[in-house]
Amino acid sequence: MSDARYDFASDNTAPAAPEAMQALLAANQGFTSGYGTDHVTARAADLVRALLDADAEVRFVASGTAANAISLAALCRPFEAVLAHEHAHVCTDETGAPGYFGQGLGLIGLPGASGRIDPPALEAALAQPDVSYRQSPAALSLTNATEYGTVYSAGALTALTRAAKAKGYGVHLDGARLANAAAAGFDLTAIKNLGVDILVVGGTKAGMPPTEAVVIFDRALARRFDARLKQAGQLPSKGRFYAAPFIGMLEDGAFVRHAAHANAMARRLAELTPFKVRHAVEANGLFVEMDEPALKRLHAAGWFAYRFLDGTVRFMCSWATTPETVEALGETLARIA
Amino acid sequence: MSDARYDFASDNTAPAAPEAMQALLAANQGFTSGYGTDHVTARAADLVRALLDADAEVRFVASGTAANAISLAALCRPFEAVLAHEHAHVCTDETGAPGYFGQGLGLIGLPGASGRIDPPALEAALAQPDVSYRQSPAALSLTNATEYGTVYSAGALTALTRAAKAKGYGVHLDGARLANAAAAGFDLTAIKNLGVDILVVGGTKAGMPPTEAVVIFDRALARRFDARLKQAGQLPSKGRFYAAPFIGMLEDGAFVRHAAHANAMARRLAELTPFKVRHAVEANGLFVEMDEPALKRLHAAGWFAYRFLDGTVRFMCSWATTPETVEALGETLARIA
Amino acid sequence: MSDARYDFASDNTAPAAPEAMQALLAANQGFTSGYGTDHVTARAADLVRALLDADAEVRFVASGTAANAISLAALCRPFEAVLAHEHAHVCTDETGAPGYFGQGLGLIGLPGASGRIDPPALEAALAQPDVSYRQSPAALSLTNATEYGTVYSAGALTALTRAAKAKGYGVHLDGARLANAAAAGFDLTAIKNLGVDILVVGGTKAGMPPTEAVVIFDRALARRFDARLKQAGQLPSKGRFYAAPFIGMLEDGAFVRHAAHANAMARRLAELTPFKVRHAVEANGLFVEMDEPALKRLHAAGWFAYRFLDGTVRFMCSWATTPETVEALGETLARIA
Amino acid sequence: MSDARYDFASDNTAPAAPEAMQALLAANQGFTSGYGTDHVTARAADLVRALLDADAEVRFVASGTAANAISLAALCRPFEAVLAHEHAHVCTDETGAPGYFGQGLGLIGLPGASGRIDPPALEAALAQPDVSYRQSPAALSLTNATEYGTVYSAGALTALTRAAKAKGYGVHLDGARLANAAAAGFDLTAIKNLGVDILVVGGTKAGMPPTEAVVIFDRALARRFDARLKQAGQLPSKGRFYAAPFIGMLEDGAFVRHAAHANAMARRLAELTPFKVRHAVEANGLFVEMDEPALKRLHAAGWFAYRFLDGTVRFMCSWATTPETVEALGETLARIA
Repeated sequence: MSDARYDFASDNTAPAAPEAMQALLAANQGFTSGYGTDHVTARAADLVRALLDADAEVRFVASGTAANAISLAALCRPFEAVLAHEHAHVCTDETGAPGYFGQGLGLIGLPGASGRIDPPALEAALAQPDVSYRQSPAALSLTNATEYGTVYSAGALTALTRAAKAKGYGVHLDGARLANAAAAGFDLTAIKNLGVDILVVGGTKAGMPPTEAVVIFDRALARRFDARLKQAGQLPSKGRFYAAPFIGMLEDGAFVRHAAHANAMARRLAELTPFKVRHAVEANGLFVEMDEPALKRLHAAGWFAYRFLDGTVRFMCSWATTPETVEALGETLARIA
Repeated sequence: MSDARYDFASDNTAPAAPEAMQALLAANQGFTSGYGTDHVTARAADLVRALLDADAEVRFVASGTAANAISLAALCRPFEAVLAHEHAHVCTDETGAPGYFGQGLGLIGLPGASGRIDPPALEAALAQPDVSYRQSPAALSLTNATEYGTVYSAGALTALTRAAKAKGYGVHLDGARLANAAAAGFDLTAIKNLGVDILVVGGTKAGMPPTEAVVIFDRALARRFDARLKQAGQLPSKGRFYAAPFIGMLEDGAFVRHAAHANAMARRLAELTPFKVRHAVEANGLFVEMDEPALKRLHAAGWFAYRFLDGTVRFMCSWATTPETVEALGETLARIA
Repeated sequence: MSDARYDFASDNTAPAAPEAMQALLAANQGFTSGYGTDHVTARAADLVRALLDADAEVRFVASGTAANAISLAALCRPFEAVLAHEHAHVCTDETGAPGYFGQGLGLIGLPGASGRIDPPALEAALAQPDVSYRQSPAALSLTNATEYGTVYSAGALTALTRAAKAKGYGVHLDGARLANAAAAGFDLTAIKNLGVDILVVGGTKAGMPPTEAVVIFDRALARRFDARLKQAGQLPSKGRFYAAPFIGMLEDGAFVRHAAHANAMARRLAELTPFKVRHAVEANGLFVEMDEPALKRLHAAGWFAYRFLDGTVRFMCSWATTPETVEALGETLARIA
Repeated sequence: MSDARYDFASDNTAPAAPEAMQALLAANQGFTSGYGTDHVTARAADLVRALLDADAEVRFVASGTAANAISLAALCRPFEAVLAHEHAHVCTDETGAPGYFGQGLGLIGLPGASGRIDPPALEAALAQPDVSYRQSPAALSLTNATEYGTVYSAGALTALTRAAKAKGYGVHLDGARLANAAAAGFDLTAIKNLGVDILVVGGTKAGMPPTEAVVIFDRALARRFDARLKQAGQLPSKGRFYAAPFIGMLEDGAFVRHAAHANAMARRLAELTPFKVRHAVEANGLFVEMDEPALKRLHAAGWFAYRFLDGTVRFMCSWATTPETVEALGETLARIA
């Protein structure tokens, strides 16, 4: 709590979008059955399938950390490991949740520029021999859009997933910012052909109240998934509250439309910043090189922003970011540079 | 999904109350910091403390199952066990979540009429010697109101907690229906003196969207609790969505007022039912003796109700239960008896 | 530590048999590769396969509790449960190890006379519908000889395993006293046709130093099993120490021969005891009805014996039990009755 | 299994020393109580306490991996982390056992030359602020002798432990090669003053059959430790088999005497090798710079040795390493260089 402005601190500092809230209110009528067996959940799941043009199981959960961790625990046994970008959210920002939900499953961090896994690094990791004293990989975790605001193409993803599938490993796609990737041109209907076993479609960062959709492409994984969720504290009785926002955002296209706005705001901010931009601005984040005194001046000016893992300072835009705020921040950046 | 009426199937089939939803909408303004550091969360925590007249740490999480399991995992190591009523929600309805969050911690079910733990049974369990081949108890879990719609008095709780504290064990209070207990006369401001270490104040069943308050009386347990929650997928970025409903429900007393209504509806239903009532109707549930043909007739008449663990059929009332529906169900019950 | 005689307290109070110790000494020559890749381990695995007349993966571990828990964790996910006799060792004497190794997997205790699971009880458990709020079964755990010194026939086991396999569930056989079952007529070469996925062949209670053989009939389960064992602290570097005792005991038939002696000692004790024998004496244990004053007199006479879960007092015989000791105990029993 | 010579592959490829085996045979007499309550275990625990001149709880377990993992799980909760050298055995060679036993607890690898943690790196890690999205440290794990055959002095250890204790964190000392450290001059009676909470005294690598002593200096940690061990599959019924080797090795000083021999063998090998020695030879290991063709020639010559994490090739000596073998290997090294 402070008087600082959190507009650009993350894409989860924004309120929820009106489309999501209206759907929430609309769903809050009458009595329904619980635990995701209600008609609101069924409708939302249909819309997620339509978004992806895929026949898959869909569940709605409360948090992205839980969605990712549960997915990885479904793909990987405790004595195995997940391959992920070394700066992926599952590796760096979830307090070891994959290992908690997965009873100690390992995470093997892979390098790669701008948040994208370097294909040769993946190949090298996959080529490691199985030995009993190490956790050998059983799954690959990808993120699109990446932590650094870049976007994998379907082709780039395929190159990675194909290598993992050739070893018989599972694939998880963290889509906390899938809407932003879609707005940047990533074809969501291509995911079903990429070899992804479990996809998390981010609701929160896309402008919804807390909710994430877990999409299970591999039906064998879906067996007893509700029990898995319930045990993990992620099968809410009032399931409609997690499903409804997706209805509001998907029915009229707000999901991608809002993300396109967020992406545009990031691009505009990139035009305004006098600081060197480190990563291509393909989604809704801007990462600039800024020394500590400048960051202090920024904070002193009332804007909160994080220094990120690669040393850059990160600015995130959301559906709620206004052009006026972007201009205002741009002016501040010009002044403190 | 069906045309059945779920009004009495559970107290989580109801929509959220207007006070909660209005607070949600009011909180959905502007940008805030994340992960429970926002002013909405701070305000809600203050109101929970005021409700309990207690100085305690307060967190808001998404699900009661998670709240309970995280609490028990905080009180009990894997080679230890939790003492609880054998029909407590943590024992029978959470898919082993305490053992999942607590890496195999044990649950020792205790008997007791109408959902209340039998004090001699607790004493006997506490008197068992520590042996290395069994999980010895480290915590006591209580539920108020109980699973059978009865309410512990503060005195009755004290008798149980005192015995547990005398052994140095922790105490967890599952307050999924604490509002109903309060409406039945249970003094919430007495909890702080009962020896409770962690309390879960139910939001969902009290008429809120999915949210529960975790109240940590033992401050030593609160250390790194946010990391504990984050790892467990229960530290949502948009924390205000879990906090705001509590503001709406606590600011003007709707929390207890709505519960009083629910309790009254259950009492009225008890007057109407021709089936034998098994447990005293002190909170918002009615449990009657009904044979299988009668239950089938009830279902055929379009009303959904569960047969419970003790063989009775359960009817739950909520803030949203209308007197008209109670009368309608009463008529059906009279007809099918 | 005391002056009490522990001869009959358990079959693990005995020293190791000379055949096992001689093999240990013989194996303790020269340098070998580690972690079960040595020739001693290979030879012992061959002998276990020959004992069972089965082509299966064999590993040697340090403790029966670990062997069982690792096996169950391989067959059952955390949100699932194992069906076992309610008095099975995995349910009552392993401090919740299955839940620890299996991250909270559930145990569903089934009734049955004299330690044998009641087939209708199993059928009823298997007929339960899958629901998300309960841990549904995924595996059946059997014990032969049973905890009460009785022995399943191959036919009786088949009736149980067939029901479990029909549901697609895994089967674990705890053979802590498999040698005693074999000595009682149970055909070890029949196990491979019973539908057992993982078998634990007990070494310790059969007269070896601490070692148990894990036999994996389902080869798919064997993938990365060494990593599973290593992570669980059960892939010892000096593997030959766990393997060698099996060589000594299997090469010349001491495994079953010693067990036959133990069984005979139990039968003789049954002839001598004036106390009512509760369970058929088919293996190496005797369970008698003895009130508390008599048990106190027994302890006062210097003999240690446990009161067991069904209220009886248990006497276990081993390879090392001498006829003279049996007669001496028999005289004491006659005196204190 | 092969014809390769494993004499220098590890210090666990050796057989057990005669002192250990004779004690094992001596202990294998008569009946005893189980689970570590026997007089053999009591005697061995006394000898470990005498070795350390410390009043502490002592337990004997089957494997070093389990001993370490159980110790770390006792010091660290799942949402916390252990600080350790990045090449420590717990980080690199135990298949993630700490995270398995500790339900996902984190490992934070610290740099440092020749296996010793760099004090400024530890200070920097300790100075990190607690944040909810990361696993903050709760314990420090040290190894003496280190993975690279170097030995911490008591003073060097104190500098590290003092920093950790100042933060209130626990300290674990992995003494898999504590005997070698002692033989190199490390005063074992100083450990009790170093702030170590749990120490693992290695038996296996010191020349015993599989056994390790867990020494619990912090008595509060010892509460219910037997249940902890039993649940983890590490409270063997026939406890005397884990305890007896320590009696044989400690009663007449063989523990340190054999280690002194192993250390001397390593020093002699260092004199003989034409390859550049990377780390000071203070204990029983030699690490040399050897390119891949040379390593291939070594293997072709029938000697097995591992390439280690820092790229060097490792040769380990043990109590059983003979001067003749050292000379023979030296000649081979000279030939293949």
